[in-house]
Amino acid sequence: MPKKPYIIIMAGGIGSRFWPYSRRHKPKQFLDVLGEGRSLLQMTFDRFSELADPEQFIVITYTKYLDQVKEQLPELQDHQILSEPARKNTATCIAYATYKIFSRDPEAELIITPADHLVREDDRFKAVMGVALKVAKEGNRLVTIGITPDRPETGYGYIQYHHQEGNEAMKVKTFTEKPNEALAKTFLESGDFVWNSGIFIWKAKSLIHALKTHLPDLADAFEEGIGHLNTAKEGEFIQKAYLQVKSISIDYGVMEKSEEVYVIPSDFGWSDLGSWESLYELRQQDENKNVVEANAMLYDTKNCLIKTDSDRLVVIRGLENYLVNEEDNVLLICPINTEKEFRQFVADAKKKGVKFI
Amino acid sequence: MPKKPYIIIMAGGIGSRFWPYSRRHKPKQFLDVLGEGRSLLQMTFDRFSELADPEQFIVITYTKYLDQVKEQLPELQDHQILSEPARKNTATCIAYATYKIFSRDPEAELIITPADHLVREDDRFKAVMGVALKVAKEGNRLVTIGITPDRPETGYGYIQYHHQEGNEAMKVKTFTEKPNEALAKTFLESGDFVWNSGIFIWKAKSLIHALKTHLPDLADAFEEGIGHLNTAKEGEFIQKAYLQVKSISIDYGVMEKSEEVYVIPSDFGWSDLGSWESLYELRQQDENKNVVEANAMLYDTKNCLIKTDSDRLVVIRGLENYLVNEEDNVLLICPINTEKEFRQFVADAKKKGVKFI
Repeated sequence: MPKKPYIIIMAGGIGSRFWPYSRRHKPKQFLDVLGEGRSLLQMTFDRFSELADPEQFIVITYTKYLDQVKEQLPELQDHQILSEPARKNTATCIAYATYKIFSRDPEAELIITPADHLVREDDRFKAVMGVALKVAKEGNRLVTIGITPDRPETGYGYIQYHHQEGNEAMKVKTFTEKPNEALAKTFLESGDFVWNSGIFIWKAKSLIHALKTHLPDLADAFEEGIGHLNTAKEGEFIQKAYLQVKSISIDYGVMEKSEEVYVIPSDFGWSDLGSWESLYELRQQDENKNVVEANAMLYDTKNCLIKTDSDRLVVIRGLENYLVNEEDNVLLICPINTEKEFRQFVADAKKKGVKFI
Repeated sequence: MPKKPYIIIMAGGIGSRFWPYSRRHKPKQFLDVLGEGRSLLQMTFDRFSELADPEQFIVITYTKYLDQVKEQLPELQDHQILSEPARKNTATCIAYATYKIFSRDPEAELIITPADHLVREDDRFKAVMGVALKVAKEGNRLVTIGITPDRPETGYGYIQYHHQEGNEAMKVKTFTEKPNEALAKTFLESGDFVWNSGIFIWKAKSLIHALKTHLPDLADAFEEGIGHLNTAKEGEFIQKAYLQVKSISIDYGVMEKSEEVYVIPSDFGWSDLGSWESLYELRQQDENKNVVEANAMLYDTKNCLIKTDSDRLVVIRGLENYLVNEEDNVLLICPINTEKEFRQFVADAKKKGVKFI
């Protein structure tokens, strides 16, 4: 039987884009956003449960979310849940998890995934993972999953690849973060750009090789304490290491610099659930194209997402393309495509001294 | 010193037009709708406090509102608060209060007023009351106050009068309930129509005379038990009398039939506060023409009334001419001019089993 991969789930994000539904104390990954009874973190775990055994999962999260992870994933042992003492972006997060696994299993193969994305076609997803693991076996390859774009989305990163007929994995040419609309259109038309899903597949030693080459300070910080990992001293060591390292993303720090990056253009019903509108699109809509998760009476109301956390009666008349979300101490009413203004809402609410932002 | 009038305040209405702010268990008259610290009932009491001594007030209300009246008007003795065991419309209500006063003071002069209307110009109001009391002294006159209309309102009753140059009180010609818009326009243009304010001034014996003439059954019911009024048997007698009498309004039962009705066309900043929109118009508006009684952050929002009963943060973007009212177990969002649909909302909420409609 071939070796099974380790699954590293990154679950430390703040995710205020579903505010006020998501909060700093309960970000997106811990929410059952589809109303199907499983949080995004749990759905992520489920998605990989046929690819790896429970003991091969590592969830890495921010200290204050530790209890939520334990509660939501009782399948995991405490040592499988890594706690980051500070937010130092994805390169640090991935380095920690990778060194931790590598120190016990130098031949480990890893799949790294965000905890708060959605995949609708699990079978296709699993097939892609199989291909990626195969591709990642060779040399020091770093494999990333690209999503075939269906619109000129300006909120995502794009990956351009060298088109190689017949290959499932393509050599990566460039990374571009959030293009403007004109550029996004050009990308879409050109046909050799995919969205950056933030899902990575590699051998632990390939990543360590890349860290040593492109982020030597980060590699050094972990190399120095590698003997402490998986011992009683791990916590103390990590505390210090996190004080010392820079905050940098894996894309910027490694992927954009390495010559050994491959992308697998894919299509498995992926969404990063980056906005209320994206959630609205994914949810079951009623005959008036409303998504209702509330005790509601709607009149002359279309294309709305109505969601409350209580059994309070919500009576709405004459709204179209609106979001109404009441959660705990906040009621939000705004056009469903309000996206950029969200930061303003949250910042203003913070200034106002609102609790539990 | 001339005799002071008795003031009968009718405070038994249900007033669901400010739903969900107003509820069956807390109707409009008990609410501080202007946010000035006094309920409409209390403002009505205040309005007459220079015209009559506290012991000359009678508040007549529905049984279940008794405690709210006592709480809001501690100036009154228990015997000044009459409790109606059933809703039998204004003729019955006024007959009860009138017989009660008449049995102790056959020469009593009465002013009868709704508890849930608004008067903005108290001095002008007082002057009008003075005129009305003077006019009512003669014969068996029934005096009503008309409001000079400033728009073709279709929600009010209209009173047509015989124009008599130089007179303050005019003989009434016709009553018309809620005309359609074309008719309301004709009324407005003709210049001899005023709105029916529901404020009446007469001697107790004039009204009793009119009741005997036009509503003899109602008069008989009270005449029969007049000896019980102001005794320990009053409650029992009223309970029986209310079972027996028909439900009929004073306008339909007496005013439209009597030949001795006079109206005083007036203008003292009156409003019956019959809709959210009328309340919005009367309230202090901010620079964006919003009326806000909530912990709110508004963006791109104009001409809205935002009112909540908690300190929950309300964030709104992109609403114009809307009402947002959250009270207890109901959140309502609808165009501010939604008026006719209110009954539907309340009826549907009732069907849904919502508590405290």
